Amino acid sequence: MAVLGCGSVGSQVVRLLTEQADDLEARVGARLELAGVAVRRLDAAREVQVPAGLLTTDATGLVAREDVDLVIETIGGIEPARSLILSAFENGKSVVSANKALIAEDGATLFEAAAKAERDFYYEAAVAAAIPILRPLRESLAGDRVTRVLGIVNGTTNFILDKMDTSGAGFSDALEEAQELGFAEADPTADVEGFDAAAKAAILASLAFHSRVTAADVHREGITDVTAADVASAREMDAVVKLLAIAELRPGPDGGEQVAVRVHPAMIPRSHPLASVRGAYNAVFVESEAAGQLMFYGPGAGGSPTASAVLGDLVTVARNRLADTRGAGESAYAERPVMSMGETRTRYHVSLDVDDVAGVLASVATAFADHGVSIQTVRQEGRDDDAQLVVVSHAATDAALSATVERLRTMETVREVTSVMRVEGGDE
Amino acid sequence: MAVLGCGSVGSQVVRLLTEQADDLEARVGARLELAGVAVRRLDAAREVQVPAGLLTTDATGLVAREDVDLVIETIGGIEPARSLILSAFENGKSVVSANKALIAEDGATLFEAAAKAERDFYYEAAVAAAIPILRPLRESLAGDRVTRVLGIVNGTTNFILDKMDTSGAGFSDALEEAQELGFAEADPTADVEGFDAAAKAAILASLAFHSRVTAADVHREGITDVTAADVASAREMDAVVKLLAIAELRPGPDGGEQVAVRVHPAMIPRSHPLASVRGAYNAVFVESEAAGQLMFYGPGAGGSPTASAVLGDLVTVARNRLADTRGAGESAYAERPVMSMGETRTRYHVSLDVDDVAGVLASVATAFADHGVSIQTVRQEGRDDDAQLVVVSHAATDAALSATVERLRTMETVREVTSVMRVEGGDE
Repeated sequence: MAVLGCGSVGSQVVRLLTEQADDLEARVGARLELAGVAVRRLDAAREVQVPAGLLTTDATGLVAREDVDLVIETIGGIEPARSLILSAFENGKSVVSANKALIAEDGATLFEAAAKAERDFYYEAAVAAAIPILRPLRESLAGDRVTRVLGIVNGTTNFILDKMDTSGAGFSDALEEAQELGFAEADPTADVEGFDAAAKAAILASLAFHSRVTAADVHREGITDVTAADVASAREMDAVVKLLAIAELRPGPDGGEQVAVRVHPAMIPRSHPLASVRGAYNAVFVESEAAGQLMFYGPGAGGSPTASAVLGDLVTVARNRLADTRGAGESAYAERPVMSMGETRTRYHVSLDVDDVAGVLASVATAFADHGVSIQTVRQEGRDDDAQLVVVSHAATDAALSATVERLRTMETVREVTSVMRVEGGDE
Repeated sequence: MAVLGCGSVGSQVVRLLTEQADDLEARVGARLELAGVAVRRLDAAREVQVPAGLLTTDATGLVAREDVDLVIETIGGIEPARSLILSAFENGKSVVSANKALIAEDGATLFEAAAKAERDFYYEAAVAAAIPILRPLRESLAGDRVTRVLGIVNGTTNFILDKMDTSGAGFSDALEEAQELGFAEADPTADVEGFDAAAKAAILASLAFHSRVTAADVHREGITDVTAADVASAREMDAVVKLLAIAELRPGPDGGEQVAVRVHPAMIPRSHPLASVRGAYNAVFVESEAAGQLMFYGPGAGGSPTASAVLGDLVTVARNRLADTRGAGESAYAERPVMSMGETRTRYHVSLDVDDVAGVLASVATAFADHGVSIQTVRQEGRDDDAQLVVVSHAATDAALSATVERLRTMETVREVTSVMRVEGGDE
């Protein structure tokens, strides 16, 4: 067995392999021998002491060694991770990876290489760290029909939005606090712009709907534009703003089924199980025909939780290796196309500052009606000579909803569109 | 493939096998052919139409048929389910079962028969219906060290306790409403006395701690003695009463590790993720060394959710059969002994009506101290000539805590011990 990378995840994998060696042996049916750990620099500071004889900078050599059956990739990013994984398969190794970016961008290449080599490729740790969610989707729900996945899959953004909700802080202050507490990186782009969540959304959608979905297929909006006013507006509706990764099975225009997949902030009712996911925790909510509503909750990041998921996969892959068999490979038989964001049906919550004059509600309602959008609720509150109007729509295509908002912005009686946010987790 | 039993679970299994036949074929890699459905009476009313040619009253003959590779047991109870499963293994079939009572009472016999026959035995549906919990414990967490499982695993009792919490109703009224709404059986004994939860606790403990634990090992208390006063007392502490199935790894007297396993009502803080599990929903909260705190949530009963779990197992077992391999069998290598309830460390919440005289608090405190129990919080409230005293202890052995309560009951200044309930889910 070889470990590639010895950062926060890799070092915890090495620690657990050592500390739990006896239990792992009993569960696998054979001793797992660590042949080497590939690192960039031999003398880097590490969380965990690795015997010097195991460290090597020659990752390519390590994945080709004859005494290595299993390769654990914890490097992250596209290269050299991809080349090393492909080289591992070419050399007949099984692979466990925690690499969400690579799998979401180019999973197909890896799955095909694994299939060709007749080896296992497991990657539970790529989504929501220790929370078992990929295995339940792949295996536990294999006899069911999943219709929707709603996930809080990024701890940094959930921490920030939770802080904004509980303290009334704006985005910048909440981000700063997250950075001080170590919940956000110095460069938070991958998290706050939704790139991390989009990669996970693609992986979840692929598994849930037995189709190939890549990060590029995911409509992505981050949380940098979420304002204290948005959060306050949600609060008034007894809702909370969360960055959601959403994957849904939807009827397509030709009658077939399509996959709608997106990442954006959305209001969800406080009574929804996802609303109570606080701080940096993650949760994935799954709806399926027979099982109904399921939720999987836990820490979505961190070296040790991620290592737990890696080692769970490792036990399975090692057992398969011993039995000379392998687990289920990629399941993409359904080949469902990805629906465009414009065609996807969503719901909007729109707050407007309007002139407090007769007919303004009628003109706003007309703007919605003209775009074929039906309104679920309107709340109007007068203040001096202007009024605040809050409109929640029924489901309509995102294109129709966004065109409605564009129209509202141009209307004379509308002073300002103060908040636009999608609504999820309730009735349509 | 044969299905044994065609009640609420069996009939939904038959329905899904038919409706999802194409998807199941794609996921398994071969068509699943239903060879027969064993029933007690051919002419009974059923939720789902079964082709008459498939129905048979000869279950023994069915499990021996050559065109049957896989047997799905949904009969429930000990016999004839056990004999039929054993006969299936003897005839070289793999088995999927939803039978918690049988597995909790005599799982060892089934596991040994499966091992001897070199066949799979899967039973995800036995605990918390559709919620994937056994597979995550067996597989996803196989590289981790689980230290505690806290579960709300009985929907009937959770519905009743939730109703008592939200409406202030007493147990009898809440039970009656549960019965009217179909959440409780006419004879609710198995649910309200904790037998159902105890069976599930035994199964969870076995898997979590790689040891054999049977229903008889589980200390069991039901909810029939939970009063409106207990629930109100919890509410004052910002807690809620839940019937919990608890399995913990604990240091034993000889320095080794033991399994403490029990089912009883307990107060948990409203901030605990399990506190928000409402109505008839189930959830299992898992603590492990590397992953930290995980929770699995969903519908814990019902024909269709249970059938989802059965079919998930079926896909795995069928795939294994095709690949001529099998999944992990029983894992009981750790052989940890079960700790007695008296030795198990718990915490108590005790409410007392006492004389409002000087020294009463001192005498109550002495009763705790004499039994080596340290007190975490005391709250005293005077009312006329008596006072209410609420004491929450730190963790102590259950024997010491229950002896303390016995002592309190005999004290002259204590008019009545009005509520005794264990406390879980917080710091010790």
